[in-house]
Amino acid sequence: MRDEPRSGCPINAGVEMLGDPWSLIVLRDVMFGDRRYFRELLTNSEEGIASNILASRLKSLVGAGLLTREDAGRGHKARYSLTEAGIQTLPVLVALGTWGRTHCKTSRALTVRQELLEQGGPQMVADLQDELRAHHLGVTTAERPGPSPTERLHAAYQTAIVGDPL
Amino acid sequence: MRDEPRSGCPINAGVEMLGDPWSLIVLRDVMFGDRRYFRELLTNSEEGIASNILASRLKSLVGAGLLTREDAGRGHKARYSLTEAGIQTLPVLVALGTWGRTHCKTSRALTVRQELLEQGGPQMVADLQDELRAHHLGVTTAERPGPSPTERLHAAYQTAIVGDPL
Repeated sequence: MRDEPRSGCPINAGVEMLGDPWSLIVLRDVMFGDRRYFRELLTNSEEGIASNILASRLKSLVGAGLLTREDAGRGHKARYSLTEAGIQTLPVLVALGTWGRTHCKTSRALTVRQELLEQGGPQMVADLQDELRAHHLGVTTAERPGPSPTERLHAAYQTAIVGDPL
Repeated sequence: MRDEPRSGCPINAGVEMLGDPWSLIVLRDVMFGDRRYFRELLTNSEEGIASNILASRLKSLVGAGLLTREDAGRGHKARYSLTEAGIQTLPVLVALGTWGRTHCKTSRALTVRQELLEQGGPQMVADLQDELRAHHLGVTTAERPGPSPTERLHAAYQTAIVGDPL
């Protein structure tokens, strides 16, 4: 990452920060998979991310202010959390997922959560962001009745993988 | 681009196709700048895209079905048009622009169109997509009263660059 952006265009700014083959995939796994440790992100990777690529992406995401790294000290594993800027990448992930679902080959099990997010519209995205704020930033919000967005996404995924493996 | 995607995840599919530092920038210029020829895309590039990178991205975007290339024959310049899949990347561009505007350094002149798109919400994005369909695919839709999304974006940009150069 250079110090000066290539231009003053906000789309370019987003592309410069997030437009590479792995950064958004790592954020997706922290966000939807609650994978908070290096080992989890590495071994549960559907895309088979390589260890050195994961390490470099985590470092650049922390440097860019999208993740924080909590170092628990000698012998303990570092834990990653989303920042507010990281949580605000969710609409980018949803938009990319909508495009991918429509125009590319995808698996049923890995698509049900995307469909649920699209059906839920901006309100579900906002509710999920609130839930991520509570979980990653310790920001408490008013309790809402019924299952949370994360619970709904998890339930849909669990149902889907019974009939259709990844 | 490999034949098989890295996984069946729709977000990954979107990232695999669009997650690089230049593809979405080229689509942005075709979409918002109506730059349809190689020379226009090269010389008007705010980000200073290199000739060989532009050539490779145009080739891969045509190969991936996001652009079509109309070859007008010997001595004539090839003209690029958006496909339906290309037009459907607009929500990804808007989401990236929203994130970039909020979290990165941007210029006033290059941000007013982004703000207008955000204020207009999903309806303005849909209207702009209809306008792009008419312009790039020849699909005619019902005339709407008042200035079109493109005219509104252009007017906002023209006003902004008077007081604040790029």
